[in-house]
Amino acid sequence: MRAAFYEGHETISLGQCVPVPPAAGQAQIRVSHCGIYGTDLHIFHGKMDHRVKMPQVIGHEMSGVIAAVGQDVAGFAPGDRVTVRPLDHCGDCPACRAGHSHICQRLKFIGIDSPGAFQETWTVPAHTLHRLPDSLSLREAALIEPLAVACHDVRLGQVKAGEYVVVQGGGPIGALVAMVAAQAGARVLVSEINSFRLQLAARLGLRALDPNQIDLVELVTQETGGAGADVVFEVTGSAAGAEMMTRLPRTRGRMVMVAIYSQPAKVDLFRFFWRELKLIGARVYEPEDFEAAIRLAASGVMPLAALITRVCDLSELGAALGGATGGGEVMKILVRCSEEVEQ
Amino acid sequence: MRAAFYEGHETISLGQCVPVPPAAGQAQIRVSHCGIYGTDLHIFHGKMDHRVKMPQVIGHEMSGVIAAVGQDVAGFAPGDRVTVRPLDHCGDCPACRAGHSHICQRLKFIGIDSPGAFQETWTVPAHTLHRLPDSLSLREAALIEPLAVACHDVRLGQVKAGEYVVVQGGGPIGALVAMVAAQAGARVLVSEINSFRLQLAARLGLRALDPNQIDLVELVTQETGGAGADVVFEVTGSAAGAEMMTRLPRTRGRMVMVAIYSQPAKVDLFRFFWRELKLIGARVYEPEDFEAAIRLAASGVMPLAALITRVCDLSELGAALGGATGGGEVMKILVRCSEEVEQ
Repeated sequence: MRAAFYEGHETISLGQCVPVPPAAGQAQIRVSHCGIYGTDLHIFHGKMDHRVKMPQVIGHEMSGVIAAVGQDVAGFAPGDRVTVRPLDHCGDCPACRAGHSHICQRLKFIGIDSPGAFQETWTVPAHTLHRLPDSLSLREAALIEPLAVACHDVRLGQVKAGEYVVVQGGGPIGALVAMVAAQAGARVLVSEINSFRLQLAARLGLRALDPNQIDLVELVTQETGGAGADVVFEVTGSAAGAEMMTRLPRTRGRMVMVAIYSQPAKVDLFRFFWRELKLIGARVYEPEDFEAAIRLAASGVMPLAALITRVCDLSELGAALGGATGGGEVMKILVRCSEEVEQ
Repeated sequence: MRAAFYEGHETISLGQCVPVPPAAGQAQIRVSHCGIYGTDLHIFHGKMDHRVKMPQVIGHEMSGVIAAVGQDVAGFAPGDRVTVRPLDHCGDCPACRAGHSHICQRLKFIGIDSPGAFQETWTVPAHTLHRLPDSLSLREAALIEPLAVACHDVRLGQVKAGEYVVVQGGGPIGALVAMVAAQAGARVLVSEINSFRLQLAARLGLRALDPNQIDLVELVTQETGGAGADVVFEVTGSAAGAEMMTRLPRTRGRMVMVAIYSQPAKVDLFRFFWRELKLIGARVYEPEDFEAAIRLAASGVMPLAALITRVCDLSELGAALGGATGGGEVMKILVRCSEEVEQ
């Protein structure tokens, strides 16, 4: 059985997967597909070496079938089709005690802080499992994890039917946020500068515009009768995104901070005061977001498959990570981790 | 009858008040006291000349007694002791239609965009009036307007009993926010660098510390069992305040933006994501905030009078504005506008 190992700066090696028999409270999964996420790219480029123990299997956007369960695992059995919510909380810190265990102050992210899913079998705590309905292919189910991020973002943004929503950034997460907001009944506009992503957004049924080509503030003001957007999702992580986000909302409008800013950015705090704006941080997901994502994906109302620009073999992971660097003509790349699992 | 007129850059002249007979829907007030606010200082220094028509009477933190009412004014009569909520909304913009008339997109602030209260009689729309209970002196009632700001801030911050609250900035508004939060049952810490304001805060019964003398993040973390503050009020308007505010809250903690930033400031947006923080803008007040402020002030539980560092005559307004510039040993200065009104 195979596994892909991160060996340090831009090096992935294909090696032997050593199956871990599930201990009490654990499940062993035969991994079907695992998507490449921004964090995997960060790790590949050596930017998270302080958290990753080399050689390490990474990856966490996955689907698979349970191979074995340990003692004390109720509700799951071999053969069950599942995905994993890759968060391991401590249960004891102030955040966990306040009911925010998904942002536990000692959170371990499975696939970063412990081995991930770019391998044939993967053993995880059973509390991370979510069952997949038969109507959902394992290929599309590898998108449940990023879709759960989008469901969390839209839920914290309290998007309601009929609201005017701007999504700043049309990468995988931005596109999913836009699709989930549209499903919630919102009028959605995606702001994106990359022409490949603009075209892909259009194929996903989204309205997407380049803020370098149009006056976004003027357009949004006009289309909302002078009010402004109800909700703005900031998914670019750029200085331009931080500057734009406060210019778009209506009085008491909301902004949701989805992006991971590596540096403090200039923000027009006057607008917060002037229009009584609200900025809400949103990180990962809670169990209900996974359940919402699974329901949405299984309902077939969203063209999820169109997000997948490529499916490659586990042996091609290093090349895929190298090719995905810097955006370009890439949206979501899936990696086939086992040949034997249903495709 | 006298009035003080702003004549342009740092010039106030004492002149004749021309009483305006109240038209339908208006009331004429014999002004008792009017406080000096930060905006009055801004106007005095010529920074708001684009909004102010010279010569203009300014001022809006006032108390007084109704002298006359126009037609169609129900519920108020000559002799009634009142204060004024100095906001004149258009009733027709998207903000007004959404129920946010206090931040109307064409809001006229009475005392800035139209004549103010530094005069003996003042005529205002009757919808701005709030009745004062007999137990409240007209001197202290001149603090109702800034106290209503604080009530609005604390209400939007959803401060609950037992919560740990940090107020960044111990000027008049910061001190009032701290006092209102303490009345709501919160544990309150004021962060302030001015030694006069630190001492005054202590006299007001507030716990106030200098963030240049102690490690504020460390202290708050320790005192909250490693969690962080529940709510942070940013009232400094400084780069240091914008930098500090995101370091203090717990997971899903709230920040309330009370300060008026004249420039965009650097904000650690990563912390919003990481801890799912919320930043809530708060501006002026709604009618319920005035009613809450009047109830609080009349109840006598807050040492409001201790905020008043000086009461001067209308003829001294120019000198008082000059003296209040740059902070120093000043908290709230009241101006006596009429001699005849009860004191």
